[in-house]
Amino acid sequence: MKSGGEAGLAEFRAAFAGLDPMLDLVRWEEALGAPETVDYALVWDPGPGELARFPHLRVIFGAGAGVDLITADPDWPRHIPLMRMATPEAAQRMGEFCCWAVLSLLKNARRMAIAQAKGAWDYFEAPGRAELTPVGIMGLGAMGARSAAMLRALGFPVLGWSRTRKELPGVESFAGAAALPEFLGRCRMLVCLLPATPETRHIIRAETLALLPEGAGYVGAGRGMQQRLEDVLAALDSGRLSGAVLDVFEPEPLPAGHPLWSHPKATITPHVASLPTRAERAAHVARAIAAFERGEALTNLYDPARGY
Amino acid sequence: MKSGGEAGLAEFRAAFAGLDPMLDLVRWEEALGAPETVDYALVWDPGPGELARFPHLRVIFGAGAGVDLITADPDWPRHIPLMRMATPEAAQRMGEFCCWAVLSLLKNARRMAIAQAKGAWDYFEAPGRAELTPVGIMGLGAMGARSAAMLRALGFPVLGWSRTRKELPGVESFAGAAALPEFLGRCRMLVCLLPATPETRHIIRAETLALLPEGAGYVGAGRGMQQRLEDVLAALDSGRLSGAVLDVFEPEPLPAGHPLWSHPKATITPHVASLPTRAERAAHVARAIAAFERGEALTNLYDPARGY
Ligand SMILES: NC(=O)c1ccc[n+]([C@@H]2O[C@H](COP(=O)([O-])OP(=O)(O)OC[C@H]3O[C@@H](n4cnc5c(N)ncnc54)[C@H](OP(=O)(O)O)[C@@H]3O)[C@@H](O)[C@H]2O)c1
Ligand SMILES: NC(=O)c1ccc[n+]([C@@H]2O[C@H](COP(=O)([O-])OP(=O)(O)OC[C@H]3O[C@@H](n4cnc5c(N)ncnc54)[C@H](OP(=O)(O)O)[C@@H]3O)[C@@H](O)[C@H]2O)c1
Repeated sequence: MKSGGEAGLAEFRAAFAGLDPMLDLVRWEEALGAPETVDYALVWDPGPGELARFPHLRVIFGAGAGVDLITADPDWPRHIPLMRMATPEAAQRMGEFCCWAVLSLLKNARRMAIAQAKGAWDYFEAPGRAELTPVGIMGLGAMGARSAAMLRALGFPVLGWSRTRKELPGVESFAGAAALPEFLGRCRMLVCLLPATPETRHIIRAETLALLPEGAGYVGAGRGMQQRLEDVLAALDSGRLSGAVLDVFEPEPLPAGHPLWSHPKATITPHVASLPTRAERAAHVARAIAAFERGEALTNLYDPARGY
Repeated sequence: MKSGGEAGLAEFRAAFAGLDPMLDLVRWEEALGAPETVDYALVWDPGPGELARFPHLRVIFGAGAGVDLITADPDWPRHIPLMRMATPEAAQRMGEFCCWAVLSLLKNARRMAIAQAKGAWDYFEAPGRAELTPVGIMGLGAMGARSAAMLRALGFPVLGWSRTRKELPGVESFAGAAALPEFLGRCRMLVCLLPATPETRHIIRAETLALLPEGAGYVGAGRGMQQRLEDVLAALDSGRLSGAVLDVFEPEPLPAGHPLWSHPKATITPHVASLPTRAERAAHVARAIAAFERGEALTNLYDPARGY
């Protein structure tokens, strides 16, 4: 187990003990000392080559929905199933974050936060309304699909872009690179919930931002590598973007002194869009181990061929 | 017409011209010069006694959903129908605001805004989730009912408190003063959307805040007279409230230097929760006048007996 440090360990131990007393939770450093005894790994960011040292590993559980820090290890054991922590609770929290972020852009919450910091009553009219504000979601997986449904429920017209076509109630589906320009041209707000793959690197850059309607809003909550930050900044300055809520960065944390911290149109959040609690993670892993040991198929598996 | 000043007048004139060319829009000062020519008034805050000077007034249209600035005039003509601007668009915007405010409290957006102002990456875990967070709405009128439905759609359990019992899908209804303590005891978040009446003055005060679960969140978006601000402040300091989003105040604007401006748990917004645009107001009034002249009943009428 490697996720959340020492404090995390105690919390995880308590959670697992209540779920399946047969599971023996071992901290990472200890496990590396007796690697042949380890059946399952729960990990967010393994050291390079570490996962390959467990000879009898049966399943790797990523501690988050994105497993890019695991697959970044050149030696990670690709033949072992790698399960992403894309729980219903994680999808729900992401939906909550996306609704909050999109509503923040709609209401210009950043302007209100700046006025509050000055102690100034800055009355202004924000004429937007959900119904008049199509939101496009890039990535309609576990996170994107739930976010789409929740934004839809608030009254936003929702469009989605993914590799393969989707049939989600009330969501207009666009699929593949060829459909990207048409999709972007329709988004008053754009939410990026793609996985980190070679294809998605810097997919949000000057050329794609230029395809959005003037004054669109942008929410970045997938992975930092998906957005070229200088281009997002330039788009905010030029007015191409009227606002952005950014939760993910490359590198992370966003460096101190970066101009986005104080940008009047940017809202910065510290990669908190959707965090499963330790209790949720433990329950998810205990359930999955039980199912796996009964011979059932695992869900939310990373597919090395697709790269996500 | 008295709403929005000179800029408002031009916008209103354009809007009305496109809707009903027979309507002759006259600014307030001009109307007061020839009061016998005026059939309808559209007004947010009339001077004392001014409405009483129009001898042939047929309907008064409040420029907002709350008409407390009109009924505060001791001489307002009570025999003339007073229609509140509680349009579906206004209700929708209020729902958007309430969802934004409740999600802001759930995610601790105030903490994130403070960290951003310092340029600091302040990672923290907010374990909340809509499903685990019952939201109580005081006032289930035009604004409250739509807000309840939208919060419900996001996954929040929703409770409502009103004078009379309601049957709203998925909303647990509490009615009358006797049910208030039980209602408050169940609210992890409390949203106030009551009208301004003698009964609702300072309904949010130390005694009622003490009935909330420890660490509840509060959203004030009805009228400032409903909350005793010192008590809200004290509840934030004691931890009774973990956070508040306040849109309405008494007096308004919230005075410069008030401790709430810089309070680490308070989010201050400048009475912007739900503003109909001028185009929406004009459409609403033109539609209502046409219906009225066809002899149809007006909706959303202020009831002098109830006081709202
Ligand atoms: N900020 C946070 O706190 C946080 C929390 C959780 C997750 N995340 C991130 O959110 C992202 C999404 O997670 P998830 O669980 O929803 O992933 P997922 O279930 O694997 O879904 C990925 C989606 O992206 C689409 N996609 C992948 N490559 C594409 C391409 N080249 N072109 C178009 N569409 C493509 C997929 O299309 P198909 O459906 O057609 O395959 C799928 O719809 C990940 O990056 C994850 O790391 C961030
Ligand atoms: N901040 C903003 O930007 C903004 C924008 C628009 C409106 N507002 C304010 O929002 C408030 C609500 O507007 P609305 O259009 O929804 O009003 P409404 O349709 O008149 O609804 C009022 C609700 O409050 C309930 N109520 C009234 N007195 C009560 C009492 N003594 N005890 C319990 N419940 C009581 C009513 O109960 P019954 O249903 O049983 O009668 C009704 O459900 C108003 O104060 C308005 O000024 C603020």
